[in-house]
Amino acid sequence: MTSREYKKVIWTALLILLAFIIGVLIGYFSRTIVFQPDSRTKLLDRLNRDGDNSITQKLFDTIDTGQIDSNLRILTGKPRLAGTENNRESGDFVHRQFLQYGLQSEIIEYNVTLSYPDKTADNYVSVIEEDGTETFRTVAIVEGDEVQPFNAFSPSGNVMGDLVFVNYARESDFQKLKNLNINVSGTIVIAKYGKGFRGNKVKNAYEAGAIGIILYSDPGDYAPIGTNATYPDTVFLPNDGAQRGNIVLNKGDQSTPGYPANEYSYRLREHELNARLPKIPCLPISYSNAYSLLSLMTGDQVPDEWKGDLNITYRIGPGLTNKRKINLRVSNKLAHRRIFNVIGKIKGELEPDRYVMVGNHRDAWVYGSIDPISGTVVMMETARAFGQLLKDGWRPRRSVLFCSWDAEEFGLVGSFEWVEDNSKWLTSQAVAYINVDSAVSGNDTIHLKTVPLLQKVFEDAANKVPDPYGKYNSAYEAWNNHPRFRVYKMGGGSDHVPFLAGLGVPSMYPKYSYLKDIWGSTSTPLYHSRYENYHAFKMIDPELKFAKTMTSIISESIRNLADSRIIPFDLDRYAEYISNGVEELLNHYGQVVGPKMEEWIHRSVNAFHESAARLKSIIGAIHNDNDDPLYARQVNDKLLWLERSFLIDEGLPGNSLYKHLLHSPDTANYYGGVSFPGLGGITQCMDIQNTTECHVEIHKHVAKIIQRIFDAAKTLDR
Amino acid sequence: MTSREYKKVIWTALLILLAFIIGVLIGYFSRTIVFQPDSRTKLLDRLNRDGDNSITQKLFDTIDTGQIDSNLRILTGKPRLAGTENNRESGDFVHRQFLQYGLQSEIIEYNVTLSYPDKTADNYVSVIEEDGTETFRTVAIVEGDEVQPFNAFSPSGNVMGDLVFVNYARESDFQKLKNLNINVSGTIVIAKYGKGFRGNKVKNAYEAGAIGIILYSDPGDYAPIGTNATYPDTVFLPNDGAQRGNIVLNKGDQSTPGYPANEYSYRLREHELNARLPKIPCLPISYSNAYSLLSLMTGDQVPDEWKGDLNITYRIGPGLTNKRKINLRVSNKLAHRRIFNVIGKIKGELEPDRYVMVGNHRDAWVYGSIDPISGTVVMMETARAFGQLLKDGWRPRRSVLFCSWDAEEFGLVGSFEWVEDNSKWLTSQAVAYINVDSAVSGNDTIHLKTVPLLQKVFEDAANKVPDPYGKYNSAYEAWNNHPRFRVYKMGGGSDHVPFLAGLGVPSMYPKYSYLKDIWGSTSTPLYHSRYENYHAFKMIDPELKFAKTMTSIISESIRNLADSRIIPFDLDRYAEYISNGVEELLNHYGQVVGPKMEEWIHRSVNAFHESAARLKSIIGAIHNDNDDPLYARQVNDKLLWLERSFLIDEGLPGNSLYKHLLHSPDTANYYGGVSFPGLGGITQCMDIQNTTECHVEIHKHVAKIIQRIFDAAKTLDR
Repeated sequence: MTSREYKKVIWTALLILLAFIIGVLIGYFSRTIVFQPDSRTKLLDRLNRDGDNSITQKLFDTIDTGQIDSNLRILTGKPRLAGTENNRESGDFVHRQFLQYGLQSEIIEYNVTLSYPDKTADNYVSVIEEDGTETFRTVAIVEGDEVQPFNAFSPSGNVMGDLVFVNYARESDFQKLKNLNINVSGTIVIAKYGKGFRGNKVKNAYEAGAIGIILYSDPGDYAPIGTNATYPDTVFLPNDGAQRGNIVLNKGDQSTPGYPANEYSYRLREHELNARLPKIPCLPISYSNAYSLLSLMTGDQVPDEWKGDLNITYRIGPGLTNKRKINLRVSNKLAHRRIFNVIGKIKGELEPDRYVMVGNHRDAWVYGSIDPISGTVVMMETARAFGQLLKDGWRPRRSVLFCSWDAEEFGLVGSFEWVEDNSKWLTSQAVAYINVDSAVSGNDTIHLKTVPLLQKVFEDAANKVPDPYGKYNSAYEAWNNHPRFRVYKMGGGSDHVPFLAGLGVPSMYPKYSYLKDIWGSTSTPLYHSRYENYHAFKMIDPELKFAKTMTSIISESIRNLADSRIIPFDLDRYAEYISNGVEELLNHYGQVVGPKMEEWIHRSVNAFHESAARLKSIIGAIHNDNDDPLYARQVNDKLLWLERSFLIDEGLPGNSLYKHLLHSPDTANYYGGVSFPGLGGITQCMDIQNTTECHVEIHKHVAKIIQRIFDAAKTLDR
Repeated sequence: MTSREYKKVIWTALLILLAFIIGVLIGYFSRTIVFQPDSRTKLLDRLNRDGDNSITQKLFDTIDTGQIDSNLRILTGKPRLAGTENNRESGDFVHRQFLQYGLQSEIIEYNVTLSYPDKTADNYVSVIEEDGTETFRTVAIVEGDEVQPFNAFSPSGNVMGDLVFVNYARESDFQKLKNLNINVSGTIVIAKYGKGFRGNKVKNAYEAGAIGIILYSDPGDYAPIGTNATYPDTVFLPNDGAQRGNIVLNKGDQSTPGYPANEYSYRLREHELNARLPKIPCLPISYSNAYSLLSLMTGDQVPDEWKGDLNITYRIGPGLTNKRKINLRVSNKLAHRRIFNVIGKIKGELEPDRYVMVGNHRDAWVYGSIDPISGTVVMMETARAFGQLLKDGWRPRRSVLFCSWDAEEFGLVGSFEWVEDNSKWLTSQAVAYINVDSAVSGNDTIHLKTVPLLQKVFEDAANKVPDPYGKYNSAYEAWNNHPRFRVYKMGGGSDHVPFLAGLGVPSMYPKYSYLKDIWGSTSTPLYHSRYENYHAFKMIDPELKFAKTMTSIISESIRNLADSRIIPFDLDRYAEYISNGVEELLNHYGQVVGPKMEEWIHRSVNAFHESAARLKSIIGAIHNDNDDPLYARQVNDKLLWLERSFLIDEGLPGNSLYKHLLHSPDTANYYGGVSFPGLGGITQCMDIQNTTECHVEIHKHVAKIIQRIFDAAKTLDR
């Protein structure tokens, strides 16, 4: 072979080698290029996906004040008293809307015991002269389907007696009367609405010995800028307006406590039922009617701080001038009626057995434009926004329920019955419940009630939503810089109670509240009157910008809760909440519980703090680099179970249906929220008697608190 | 170019092409060969792995009767009364063994109220002549650390009266006496042990008006082949043996009902505590002592079916010959003592937050070789077998707990306190509890108590284990072909009660029982006597083959429950169980509940059947082709929650700590299992009074049953 031939062979061999190598490389990398992530890798990506912020913007973009206005107009078109045909129709409307939005929807009925004024009989207060003639009788304006002013579940009665003015009929008011040597026993009392739940007023009056109670809205509380500037010019109460409302302290259907009012359910017999209901007749009247009664009163002038804004001299009584008597006639009857909850549903994509819920009632005393419809339209628009995303092919990780409750005004009846009917799967599957009752009660700033676990969810959502006043960067910032900024404990008062106090489902209850510059109370002056209508609402939120803002906040809160890989609960806030609570507890009762119990309280709180910190660091690590979907679910289960750890089966002293040691309504003041509501009754025991028996009750209850704080720590650790 | 050169170029080009193609192929396929499933695919494989049958064989191969014997010998070496130093030591021993086996282990203490005979005073029955002289006094043989025969929680007392023979002191026995016009009021009664829980005997006697009760073991029940063939030659009771035992109807620590006996816990004050405890003194005596009393009795002969095997004429009384009286002296005292549970743990690999538990008590009245140690050694050997696999690098999917309870003999105290101390995470995380108390009580065949969900788990395990008699293919087959083959309802009687009746954790309770050819009762004749010792146990199971068989069955049951991808619960059996239960219910109370309720019962049962069938078909599909680990977990959660669906917070009528509508102990007979235990008290109401009030109670309870069956169906569906 010549050297040239030799070279040729070498070159050829090199070329072949090169071709081979290029071939190997192409073969190797073509394989890489054609290699697809297999279906299992895709599955893992899907299971581990986290919430997607672009969804937030899509939700916000969908929200339409035109839709909100249309729903508002339709729902406030007629009175919607629970148990009436009108409110069945409103349920059908919500149901049809849910379906049209692309949700699943179901109407769920219960047959419950409600209370109505008996149309065949009279309901009024009259003034009776010494000779027996009637010289004055209260009147109430009622049009069309409107129900006359009454207090649901007041017994019927026809009582005659002296009148005593008892301010707001709080325990402290009756204590004051006692100190003034005024004997309320056998009298009819008249009390101002406000500063607490009306049912507590009736109970206090009964316990003081009164035989009847009249409730009225004093202009000092309900028309503070003068009785000439009222509805329809402002949202303040005109002189013929009266606040309706129930006066029961036990919530849910009165005939089926603890169980749903289904066809097969056991219903209390008459004597069992009556034992649960208020004992003395009660009637609400307008302040023009009240004027006629109060101006006739005798006795000493009331203490300065008791005075209202009627143009009279407020007197305590007892009695009226010239030996006149008061005759109170109440004629109510109990009735079994069908009520209709509407439940819209979005089935979750990855964890359909975990539920985020939002709810509000639909029934109203009359038109209920603020209470509840301002919240119902927020919920409906939220549902529509989510429905739109469903149509675009997106689904949240977890399921979402939109709940329109009936008969809330009669004591949370619709929500209680549904929760009692679904308590078992809700206990294991409900992640959170957001209550949007009266979501736009005002236009000044946000009023937030929340459990500590959910506070951050609300804040984060409000931080993404523009300030409706356009002054700050976000609704959160506006609220945070507002003089009324505060976060409230949950307490009672609306449909979150069966979820939170009954089952331990973390809840929040946000609304826009107060009237800018003119009104500093959380409820509106027209509340539960016939003037709380579409027009009134539009005076508060003419452009629906607060409704829109609240819809955005609720939508984003739901998205975050339903779509985040790890449930966005705030463990730090819960730990802080418990620390503050026990500090309060020890300030009050440190002496009673003694140093040994005190030490155990601290140990339990420390255990909770440590467990919370451990779980938090586990969660931090998951977000970074752990892609085991079972592990994430395990962490979520611990979070889900945390709130349940504080339940006691036997319930709080005085109310066996309130099982949450921290977040039940205060048994001493139903609207209020306190750190340890089960101590409410005991506090009274201590304040009044301070006996060994009270001390024992405190020991018993504090031992349960310690146990459950330890239990909560274990739930996070296990 | 010549044609030859041309050919050369062609060939060279072809060679290059070939090299290239070979290169591509090698590159491509080398990639295949070197390609490893990525870590995420491996993760999915791991998460989806199902139980591995080879583990079963490894467990079986590890089980060693030498180890069982050694533990048995050590644990039965001394009396181990709860609250004594001996039993603290036995706890330490189990703890050390667990650690040595490779488990985590913890000793958990509670400070509880127990009951002991007061050594400074006398406990006896004596015969007092008319002139006041004592002519006979019972004696009890006690050696070393043995506690004298007594009934824990009997009050102290010194009573004198006529004697009445009341057979087994069942309600039916007292009814019979009533029919015979025998007035028990003011007398001291003597009753045979057997046919029910001794606590019910005391209660029945008290309710019949007796002022004291004496319990004895009649040879007819405890030495049936003759009083000469007793221990140490056989396992029958000698004439000086006496059965100890508690007589409380409320279980758990008596001072802290519903809550664990921790340092911070509230303890009932004396009057609250006494209200829960038995009211009349009670003492157990031997049949030689009983002979001396019964042979003195006057009155009519007992009905034939009441007669025992003592060589006397059994008479009812009341009274003894020659106006002799009976003096019963009981001197017990309550004491706060520390008890020690030992919890061994294996942390699960994939779902460590799901727990399969096996447990048994460790305390005994005296040596307790059968009750409980035959079960404790089974549990310990099971733990050792699992520990061996851990050392080999295997871990079950879920966590496993091995629980050695203290103070069971005083009313399930150790298990109740621990469950109360851990109720929250157990509710959400416990998959099943297997009770192995007295696992080898006999050698004839298996006695199985189980909830329907777990029956198949037991059967499948027993099917893999050889028949200890070597006659059939498996222990299951031998049992299935045995004339005593039957599956029992759970009822009460051991440490499963707080798990199942309190929290709804599915439980089973298997044992080897009966003595081949000679003994047909489930408890052993030497039960709770000082003769139930190592020697006695070895007469029952000399080669430990029943202990070994039971260890194998328990090990495999745990493996199946802890390691199967889908929890192996039997939905069909539960559906069938409910159908049978309501059929029974309607047979008894169809008339009372009426056609409307009956229809709703059927609807609820149908709903349950349909939901169970749906979930079953979902499970079938998962096993075949679904590899989404979150989905499997969701299905497991439904299974986990099924049993919990039957709980009611308020508890059954008469016992608020029994919350399971189906699987609580019968309130009318603590040992018994019935379909709807909450109707036990009502049945008595019906049988005796048949008033409207009884009917109302039935309606109330049946409404709850319907609700919970619907709830269970929803739990499976959601």
